[in-house]
Amino acid sequence: MRVGVLTGGGDCPGLNAVIRAIVRKGVPEYGYSFLGFRDGWRGPLEALTKPLDIPAVRGLLPRGGTILGSSRTNPFAVEGGVERIKRNLQNLGVDALIAIGGEDTLGVATKLHEMGVNVIGVPKTIDNDLAGTDYTFGFDTAVNIATEAIDRLHTTAESHHRVLIVEVMGRHAGWIALHSGMAGGANAILIPEVRFDIDQVCQWVESRFRLDYAPIIVVAEGAMPKEGDEVLRSGEKDAFGHVRLGGIGDWLAREIESRTGKEARTTVLGHVQRGGTPTARDRWLATRFGLHAIDAVHDGNWGHMTALRGTDVVTVPLAEATKALKLVDPGLYAEAEVFFG
Amino acid sequence: MRVGVLTGGGDCPGLNAVIRAIVRKGVPEYGYSFLGFRDGWRGPLEALTKPLDIPAVRGLLPRGGTILGSSRTNPFAVEGGVERIKRNLQNLGVDALIAIGGEDTLGVATKLHEMGVNVIGVPKTIDNDLAGTDYTFGFDTAVNIATEAIDRLHTTAESHHRVLIVEVMGRHAGWIALHSGMAGGANAILIPEVRFDIDQVCQWVESRFRLDYAPIIVVAEGAMPKEGDEVLRSGEKDAFGHVRLGGIGDWLAREIESRTGKEARTTVLGHVQRGGTPTARDRWLATRFGLHAIDAVHDGNWGHMTALRGTDVVTVPLAEATKALKLVDPGLYAEAEVFFG
Amino acid sequence: MRVGVLTGGGDCPGLNAVIRAIVRKGVPEYGYSFLGFRDGWRGPLEALTKPLDIPAVRGLLPRGGTILGSSRTNPFAVEGGVERIKRNLQNLGVDALIAIGGEDTLGVATKLHEMGVNVIGVPKTIDNDLAGTDYTFGFDTAVNIATEAIDRLHTTAESHHRVLIVEVMGRHAGWIALHSGMAGGANAILIPEVRFDIDQVCQWVESRFRLDYAPIIVVAEGAMPKEGDEVLRSGEKDAFGHVRLGGIGDWLAREIESRTGKEARTTVLGHVQRGGTPTARDRWLATRFGLHAIDAVHDGNWGHMTALRGTDVVTVPLAEATKALKLVDPGLYAEAEVFFG
Amino acid sequence: MRVGVLTGGGDCPGLNAVIRAIVRKGVPEYGYSFLGFRDGWRGPLEALTKPLDIPAVRGLLPRGGTILGSSRTNPFAVEGGVERIKRNLQNLGVDALIAIGGEDTLGVATKLHEMGVNVIGVPKTIDNDLAGTDYTFGFDTAVNIATEAIDRLHTTAESHHRVLIVEVMGRHAGWIALHSGMAGGANAILIPEVRFDIDQVCQWVESRFRLDYAPIIVVAEGAMPKEGDEVLRSGEKDAFGHVRLGGIGDWLAREIESRTGKEARTTVLGHVQRGGTPTARDRWLATRFGLHAIDAVHDGNWGHMTALRGTDVVTVPLAEATKALKLVDPGLYAEAEVFFG
Repeated sequence: MRVGVLTGGGDCPGLNAVIRAIVRKGVPEYGYSFLGFRDGWRGPLEALTKPLDIPAVRGLLPRGGTILGSSRTNPFAVEGGVERIKRNLQNLGVDALIAIGGEDTLGVATKLHEMGVNVIGVPKTIDNDLAGTDYTFGFDTAVNIATEAIDRLHTTAESHHRVLIVEVMGRHAGWIALHSGMAGGANAILIPEVRFDIDQVCQWVESRFRLDYAPIIVVAEGAMPKEGDEVLRSGEKDAFGHVRLGGIGDWLAREIESRTGKEARTTVLGHVQRGGTPTARDRWLATRFGLHAIDAVHDGNWGHMTALRGTDVVTVPLAEATKALKLVDPGLYAEAEVFFG
Repeated sequence: MRVGVLTGGGDCPGLNAVIRAIVRKGVPEYGYSFLGFRDGWRGPLEALTKPLDIPAVRGLLPRGGTILGSSRTNPFAVEGGVERIKRNLQNLGVDALIAIGGEDTLGVATKLHEMGVNVIGVPKTIDNDLAGTDYTFGFDTAVNIATEAIDRLHTTAESHHRVLIVEVMGRHAGWIALHSGMAGGANAILIPEVRFDIDQVCQWVESRFRLDYAPIIVVAEGAMPKEGDEVLRSGEKDAFGHVRLGGIGDWLAREIESRTGKEARTTVLGHVQRGGTPTARDRWLATRFGLHAIDAVHDGNWGHMTALRGTDVVTVPLAEATKALKLVDPGLYAEAEVFFG
Repeated sequence: MRVGVLTGGGDCPGLNAVIRAIVRKGVPEYGYSFLGFRDGWRGPLEALTKPLDIPAVRGLLPRGGTILGSSRTNPFAVEGGVERIKRNLQNLGVDALIAIGGEDTLGVATKLHEMGVNVIGVPKTIDNDLAGTDYTFGFDTAVNIATEAIDRLHTTAESHHRVLIVEVMGRHAGWIALHSGMAGGANAILIPEVRFDIDQVCQWVESRFRLDYAPIIVVAEGAMPKEGDEVLRSGEKDAFGHVRLGGIGDWLAREIESRTGKEARTTVLGHVQRGGTPTARDRWLATRFGLHAIDAVHDGNWGHMTALRGTDVVTVPLAEATKALKLVDPGLYAEAEVFFG
Repeated sequence: MRVGVLTGGGDCPGLNAVIRAIVRKGVPEYGYSFLGFRDGWRGPLEALTKPLDIPAVRGLLPRGGTILGSSRTNPFAVEGGVERIKRNLQNLGVDALIAIGGEDTLGVATKLHEMGVNVIGVPKTIDNDLAGTDYTFGFDTAVNIATEAIDRLHTTAESHHRVLIVEVMGRHAGWIALHSGMAGGANAILIPEVRFDIDQVCQWVESRFRLDYAPIIVVAEGAMPKEGDEVLRSGEKDAFGHVRLGGIGDWLAREIESRTGKEARTTVLGHVQRGGTPTARDRWLATRFGLHAIDAVHDGNWGHMTALRGTDVVTVPLAEATKALKLVDPGLYAEAEVFFG
């Protein structure tokens, strides 16, 4: 059997570890050969390939990113895309495909499976918002990077009596904000799932200063004030008379400064959250996902993806991962609120 | 209500985070006051206390160790020990006790609960071998430290064509060895649960060198060769004519050198695995254990301890944690074997 | 003798290590007592003090920030400021002052010394642009944080075939950019000392992509294109029709995208560069600066500051540090250019 | 011109960064071609080579170890060794040799230069004990690793009221012990340059406990008690009746336990100090050494090696590096003593 492997969507620490585990088990245990597809779905669509054998995966375990490259190409948005993929797979002698990716990549995988392609999925999202699995790899690394940044900002906040705001990833779900905020000892954590009240935030800031501490606020990029996005769009003029817009972190800094009179500074962590060597836990999870993905190929478990449930890696239907986002539960968020203010 | 808190057994990153969460929630939410007991069960036995309020737990989240100190004192091994504890608790006005510790500490807690003391437990073991909970805090930190060490040793092994052996913690269970070995890309992982065959290990070493790589072996301190501990005790003479004994790591190095003719070096990680700032994940878990422990006090859930089940923190009877060790499952170990040799 | 200590300007890893060393040597060796002044020059100006003895400096070595707080208060900008300082020092029985700070703080120290106050300086700047000393503490930490971020961004750049731009600190001097860019393997390093040619930068980007690599550009916040700052001010309209302005990093991303057609993303490292625990080297340097500062007090070496020359800590006149910025030498910058493109 | 490159002696973070810089500058600037020699002097002796061009050095900057391999082979200890090297260089068309290594490797380089081989040296020692240069690369990485370990051990020491001893590298010179001990806040630092008094060490331990702290002792592997090595050789019997010997760290633990009655534990850091990714500073220094080494080839500066003097990289005669070890100056050691006890 010849197995194709591709990685789609934003890069994520652990992708290479998955690829390595698939090959390291698939070759000696099942006698499979492998073919890498480059740049997500663009690979099978345009027959862009990369050799994938045991020497090719050497040294990959600690390396971030993906040696296969990635893209957000959607073959269903391309005319005749699916047919081209099927034809390319056939021409290249590829019998099965392992697609490692997030909602979009797995969405394509689900549909291709329904159209007869032998697909196994491996869930990937830095944001941890894919349903069907307790955690995804890359998330633990992102949380550790964000927590380390928060640790560093504490000392600056204290030394300068400033509000420090950290904007972390999380467009739809606040998992990174919640975990890193709790691990970093944030005084407020703002997540997309719960619209925040800017007056309440300012009260927390002020109560913190009354205790002679300096507040740290962790905000997910997708968090929103109760007033909604009109507020964000209205903007303010900068020194050059231009309207200055930015993300929610910048908006918060401006609002807190103008409402409390305290200096506020924002750090947008950005791409550093998703790059570099994975934590031990993400390597462990990615490796196990890879091992179970190739087992699923062997079992002909098409249309399924690997998933973590408790301490077990299992397989679940691909459709489970893509039917709804996994959001932060209100009860869990309430646990964190003890530390606000 | 006045609640006593103590930490027993070996120190572990996250102990301070548990203490902080207990106090940060218990004071404002339930109106409790707190009293710290020093040095594990020696504290209530000898009425050694330490004030514990919100200012006292400030800045504790990222700090390793335990501000309460620890010991291995067992009040049941002291004549009249239990009576003294009961009397001291009464004299100090302590209505309930939160005991944070491992098998021994929680064993005492279980018995005291049966004798009428209001006890809540929080499980703690760097080795992750306590039953009743998916993971314990401190374990993730230890695994990350061990993995980073393995990462570092890879380059030395390659540069010098040497076998490098890393001895990690794990007297009875191989969790740290298994996780760090898989995350670090070890070529063999030896754990207490499975007696190893030194000939097999040497074959892995040799096959590795044939591929022009240098092997890394991760061994738990409690791992044992098939031949048993007589082998370890027989020893060898060193340059001064003295018999040189050490841990299993040293034994392995000597055996591999003499059987394969390859240079082998051992690094014993030791105490660095259990000190220092906890990872984000351990802070998250420790904080949640603290929050749920004080909830358990409020609910009068005596004789229970907090536990992680999947992504949920629940409470389970204390007895569950102490009835048997949680060992590495053979199926899980088999997953890792793909990478051996 | 009673010695006052203050920290001024932006915070910097190692400030606490200086304070600790001053006290740890000054008390037992010279029999001095100490008084902390809060928030830079605002402390002596408004008689804001903080007790400073051996227990107060316990555990400070690895802690970022400054326990004394900081500010940018300039007593010469306050009417009667100098007289108030002199009077407060006298009233508090303070015979000598150690001022730890950058250009502004040491500028005040220089003038106060000329007006008869017994002052010793300790140079501090994250940017490493103070003259008179080979290096300042905090710089090594900032460079390591920036380098780690660049390491992480490499994998993202490669996986997505994107240009990644890292904006680091350095308003007037490019030391952090140069060191972290060289240590991180940047494909272009843009510093304030040398106006860059955006066409040249785009050529480097394109030559990099032709080799199938993804370029990383490190830019100091004070770097400027040849065309000058008018270019930066002209801005562009964003999705809401508002002109979007940002730092030089954002400007670069927009220009590179529009000129090369390649996706470009900017990460502004910001405050994380100056917070958190210092590197071993910064702790070493800060500790030695503290030890030599208290020796200088003992020697009555007023109007001098500590400085690193090679491997030696010496004292130099305060005026030396403040007469000119230490800029990146063109020859040194030329060394890095080998790696551009 | 064709330039050979080799790395000898113990591996050291930064070796690969030197190799990369040599090639990255030598090819485009001077039009040189390169040949890697494997395993130190064994490479030219046995004509073991490895291709070395720009693609071969890709991604090397952050990687520890050496892609060329290393050994301690001494061609002067092999009959006809020098002639074989000369012949091999001639046969392979190698006009000049860059030897990256420590005392032994550079000693060979010096003699070969005197015998007419065109050699340039790059000094390398984790221990920082080579004369002629302020610092060697790899040292900063080792110091940071040791400091991080000491940071971690502090919390364990405090929690268990134990003496913790950290044995670090340094057979002849105490640079790693001194720097990491000062950066880590050790309560005693024992170095090979100054024989220590075990009674004095025990007094420091006891005074530390009286202040309710737990002492940390950093000891270089080559440190020696006043009584000398007879003491170490006498040993003690262990539980099996065998004499137990170990390094100076183990000896210290036994002596301190028996003399003070306090529990003492030793951690031997070992090889983790010399592996893994280099710090930013070591990458900077290694890169600059590489750039200046290839410049020295271009200048025909044979028999010289690169060296750091203050902030400048210069070249000095090879003989300077090998005539004497660079030991810790008593004045510098005295600075650290302030913190003892």
